[in-house]
Amino acid sequence: MEGVDYLADERNKAEFDVDEMKIVWAGSRYNFELSDRISKLVANDPGFSKEGRTMLPRKELFKNTLRKAAYAWKRIIDLRLSEEEATQLRRWVDEPAFTDLHWGMFIPAIKGQGTDEQQKKWLPLAHKMQIIGCYAQTELGHGSNVQGLETTATFDPQTDEFVIHSPTLTSSKWWPGGLGKVSTHAVVYARLITDGKDYGINGFIVQLRSLEDHKPLPGITVGDIGMKFGNGAYNTMDNGVLKFDHVRIPRDQMLMRVSQVTKEGKYVQSDIPRQLLYGTMVYVRQTIVADASIAMSRAVCIATRYSAVRRQFGSQNGGKETQVIDYKTQQNRLFPLLASAYAFRFVGEWLKWLYTDVTQRLQANDFSTLPEAHACTAGLKSLTTTATADGIEECRKLCGGHGYLCSSGLPELFAVYVPACTYEGDNVVLQLQVARFLMKTVSQLGSVKKPVGTIAYMGRIEHLMQCRSDVKQAKDWLKPSAILEAFEARAVRMSVACAQNLSKFDNPEEGFAELAADLVEAAVSHCQLIVVSKFIEKLQQNIPGKGIKQQLEVLCGIYSLFLLHKHQGDFLGTGYITSKQASLANDQLRALYSQLRSNAVSLVDAFNYTDHYLDSILGRYDGNVYPKLYETAWKDPLNESDVADGFHDYIRPIIKQQLRTARL
Amino acid sequence: MEGVDYLADERNKAEFDVDEMKIVWAGSRYNFELSDRISKLVANDPGFSKEGRTMLPRKELFKNTLRKAAYAWKRIIDLRLSEEEATQLRRWVDEPAFTDLHWGMFIPAIKGQGTDEQQKKWLPLAHKMQIIGCYAQTELGHGSNVQGLETTATFDPQTDEFVIHSPTLTSSKWWPGGLGKVSTHAVVYARLITDGKDYGINGFIVQLRSLEDHKPLPGITVGDIGMKFGNGAYNTMDNGVLKFDHVRIPRDQMLMRVSQVTKEGKYVQSDIPRQLLYGTMVYVRQTIVADASIAMSRAVCIATRYSAVRRQFGSQNGGKETQVIDYKTQQNRLFPLLASAYAFRFVGEWLKWLYTDVTQRLQANDFSTLPEAHACTAGLKSLTTTATADGIEECRKLCGGHGYLCSSGLPELFAVYVPACTYEGDNVVLQLQVARFLMKTVSQLGSVKKPVGTIAYMGRIEHLMQCRSDVKQAKDWLKPSAILEAFEARAVRMSVACAQNLSKFDNPEEGFAELAADLVEAAVSHCQLIVVSKFIEKLQQNIPGKGIKQQLEVLCGIYSLFLLHKHQGDFLGTGYITSKQASLANDQLRALYSQLRSNAVSLVDAFNYTDHYLDSILGRYDGNVYPKLYETAWKDPLNESDVADGFHDYIRPIIKQQLRTARL
Repeated sequence: MEGVDYLADERNKAEFDVDEMKIVWAGSRYNFELSDRISKLVANDPGFSKEGRTMLPRKELFKNTLRKAAYAWKRIIDLRLSEEEATQLRRWVDEPAFTDLHWGMFIPAIKGQGTDEQQKKWLPLAHKMQIIGCYAQTELGHGSNVQGLETTATFDPQTDEFVIHSPTLTSSKWWPGGLGKVSTHAVVYARLITDGKDYGINGFIVQLRSLEDHKPLPGITVGDIGMKFGNGAYNTMDNGVLKFDHVRIPRDQMLMRVSQVTKEGKYVQSDIPRQLLYGTMVYVRQTIVADASIAMSRAVCIATRYSAVRRQFGSQNGGKETQVIDYKTQQNRLFPLLASAYAFRFVGEWLKWLYTDVTQRLQANDFSTLPEAHACTAGLKSLTTTATADGIEECRKLCGGHGYLCSSGLPELFAVYVPACTYEGDNVVLQLQVARFLMKTVSQLGSVKKPVGTIAYMGRIEHLMQCRSDVKQAKDWLKPSAILEAFEARAVRMSVACAQNLSKFDNPEEGFAELAADLVEAAVSHCQLIVVSKFIEKLQQNIPGKGIKQQLEVLCGIYSLFLLHKHQGDFLGTGYITSKQASLANDQLRALYSQLRSNAVSLVDAFNYTDHYLDSILGRYDGNVYPKLYETAWKDPLNESDVADGFHDYIRPIIKQQLRTARL
Repeated sequence: MEGVDYLADERNKAEFDVDEMKIVWAGSRYNFELSDRISKLVANDPGFSKEGRTMLPRKELFKNTLRKAAYAWKRIIDLRLSEEEATQLRRWVDEPAFTDLHWGMFIPAIKGQGTDEQQKKWLPLAHKMQIIGCYAQTELGHGSNVQGLETTATFDPQTDEFVIHSPTLTSSKWWPGGLGKVSTHAVVYARLITDGKDYGINGFIVQLRSLEDHKPLPGITVGDIGMKFGNGAYNTMDNGVLKFDHVRIPRDQMLMRVSQVTKEGKYVQSDIPRQLLYGTMVYVRQTIVADASIAMSRAVCIATRYSAVRRQFGSQNGGKETQVIDYKTQQNRLFPLLASAYAFRFVGEWLKWLYTDVTQRLQANDFSTLPEAHACTAGLKSLTTTATADGIEECRKLCGGHGYLCSSGLPELFAVYVPACTYEGDNVVLQLQVARFLMKTVSQLGSVKKPVGTIAYMGRIEHLMQCRSDVKQAKDWLKPSAILEAFEARAVRMSVACAQNLSKFDNPEEGFAELAADLVEAAVSHCQLIVVSKFIEKLQQNIPGKGIKQQLEVLCGIYSLFLLHKHQGDFLGTGYITSKQASLANDQLRALYSQLRSNAVSLVDAFNYTDHYLDSILGRYDGNVYPKLYETAWKDPLNESDVADGFHDYIRPIIKQQLRTARL
């Protein structure tokens, strides 16, 4: 870093202790020190440089990712990093790679679905990376509907083998990361057929490539599915296509924890409850929510710093122009995203707790909280990823023209993030699952079972259907109880309205299909309530550190009141607030923006991101934007020569009016 | 095209005459035949193939664009195409290139700002492309605030020359398309300084490169600014950086239509009204609105066809699964975008008329309608480009995972389209201009001047402030008058509320800054009213053709009621509708979706886009999606060999546990 800090004035304005906030953001001092140490280790190692990444053609880009992945593994071994540290290192290297799937899906699938014996055989190989694996579920014709997968695994008792086969073109595996060019093995999901009967989807460990020369094994057609959104982004990943032509694997490569096929071809269910599998889903989605707060905060960090550097209009008497962060229109778009980053961080922290809680209960054979936990993680995955994808693009727009340059870091961040809206459950499909759970809850109200956890508020339905906001002046909206009741009343009333409309249909499924769009809105209102309430709960904790709590209160207020304004129609339509109260909320929101303003840059500093990680000229810690933009431009391949390649063939003939004889 | 049409069933369902709708969409039979002929000419010419575009590294990508541009120019000459046909040809080639700026900005700038003599000298050279020009306005430090540009043009009476100079780093020209590697000339905007006085921004024709060897002339530093969002997208364009070191140009290269500098260095204003320059702005923004309808319709065409091909869930007894277009959640996201495409098309048509009208008035020295026309084009530019950028990304998400592949065409369409939200006026800055105009209008109500044109409704303020919707059942929302009054009442009330809040501030500018976010919302509500009202006006015309009018009525209803639902808070908050009426609107909206369903594919066929233009496997006319996706995957460079480049260096050492000795 250079000597001058162009954002020093901004940093001096902060009314809170940034170092303490770094710890709040990280979740604990331990977490902070861990991620601080590893992120700097990565940032200072030229082996992990990101330079020129967006300018590489696919093949070179991919080869460079292979190099980085190998180098990362070597560093992990050399430095004897723990599993936790290794995971951190891969995160800060910040480049999608086959290793994400090997560690994040292949190994967990074997752990979750393999018998003890299978784990004993395969996990050591995988942990040493003597085999590299991926997770081959989705097919060309099937994504959301897992039960519709077409790949077959037919048991042949003659040879004690399964025959894995792709009966149609649409049954080709399509999308799995790491599948195309790297993985030697895959957990393949296929319809289990034995004794002439289809037993539905099961997982199978299949070797795809030779461990010697890496060639695809007989019967296996495998390759990359081609370019994806963005310059670098997910093009560093070999998302793959895979077709099987009657590939035989030993019977014991079916993952048999939950169900088995015997030597005789008999299908047997074990006594392990299937619900255990849902625990994994809760785990994966919980990490997606945590990732959302990281991606959102990263974009917000870039946009906030640049908004403080950038000046436009408002110069008086030849003085400096106004910093764009001082414009209310900029604040109204940027600050709610900054608040969302913190809100998602805290709800993510809580989800992590929820996962632990669910796991302990499952181990004690208590499945009672699973439906609620499942609905809640599904809904929060959907809510946070949608908001984050939109938020990154909004941050890009907030950086004006320069945000469109790859050197801003934002186009790549967007392109690499958006698949989160689609993978691990399409965001709309997930909200429909939440809605189904809510409708069930509403229909069971009044019965013996009292709603608990995130739906406990439904137990107070009578009050929530009747009550009205008692806000009289703008500052009344600062009371957590005023906010909470507003979001609860809105959520209950929207669910109840849907339930009433559904009851008008003779066929409930038909009604559900017809009213799907309304149901999604009700589900979203429920999920927003969860985020708001977890933020408020966080504030009820003891949070030491100068000014920390005050800042978080401002952020919580901005998050809540921005949502209230955005979804005004719901709050007004359900009759909980008056239009006067809505307008008071808006006044309070503006006042909160003013309070946040002088802390904005320090609030993004608290994320503790290195310049290497941000990979953004606009978001540089030191704010030295313009000279670096200028300097970087000259590195483009087009600037290798003053006169463009192609001048003689394609430009000169135009200027010299010699197109007739030109070869084009 | 192959023999089988997988969408034939969809096409057979249409309840209207598609060929007639093609003409409505094109605006006239003449327009239809022109664009049909030229788009097919381009599609059938291998010289314009788009194959592999997203896989090319920057230099090759750019060189290929140079080739295409030269080839296009050759075809234009060989076929003796008219200017209109040539413009069409460039549009259908569908690749941003320096020629866009040469024809679209450089030539118009000389036409609009040059004297007759200057036009006589420069236009013939430009029309034959003996010189290639661009439009060098924005600087590294200045975009929106044109008056803040720093480049200087200082007159030197000794030599009768201007000295063009970049006094700071931030004064470097930055972004102009065609500037980096191709243009020989530029219209450069700089502060005119003569006699020691700064006369503000003026245009100057400056030669940048030798016409012989294309080398930058002395004192000129010029290059490309580097990679931008997306794979191909705007990376085919040489957006440039340009620094001047005391570059001298003859005095007569200042564009002198509006103001002149005499030989003695005296600054003189001509009697040409400056307002004429605003006419150009109206023209440019009008074309942007027209382009929005094209980009939106293109994305919608892809998403609609694929939604009819894609099936997921809902299979009964092993039959086919449900087409995703049949899901209400899909319809609720897709159909309003389809309706928006048509809405933007018609408002664009009307804006074209407005431009002609304004031009005629300007020529007759009638400037009375200019402020209204200016506000209305600024607002519609902002509204349509924001909606289109968001709409394209929504269409991409509607295509699920496969929408993330470049071969879907949608990532590129998004990346190439989004700059429209920023260039030619940042969309938020533009809405603030609209708001300023609205506040002025409100403050002048009651004076002699009656509001006309798009603000005529403000003349009925008394009624609109009082009235309430008389909708009693869902179908009442089909009445154009019900819709129109709702949008008018909402717009008036939001403007009046802003004006009232503004009046509470002692300093009006301070109030404007503080309430900026609310003012933007008021401006948006005004602009939505314009789009809705122009759609309704279109329907009052005589529109022949079987079923055409009915379809347009459905689309108009969807567009309006979707907005009403989305902005419910405004309509409820201003007290025009009750929550019961809001919910009836929603019921009617759902009913309209069902009416549209069987016509959806035919409504996108009416755009008459070739497969070449769409460049999307998901949007193929014949719906033959899966085999083509599969086939295309194998063309990725990573699939050139079974075993990845880099296996020996980076994968084998991992598997074989030989990292210690590997060179990484």
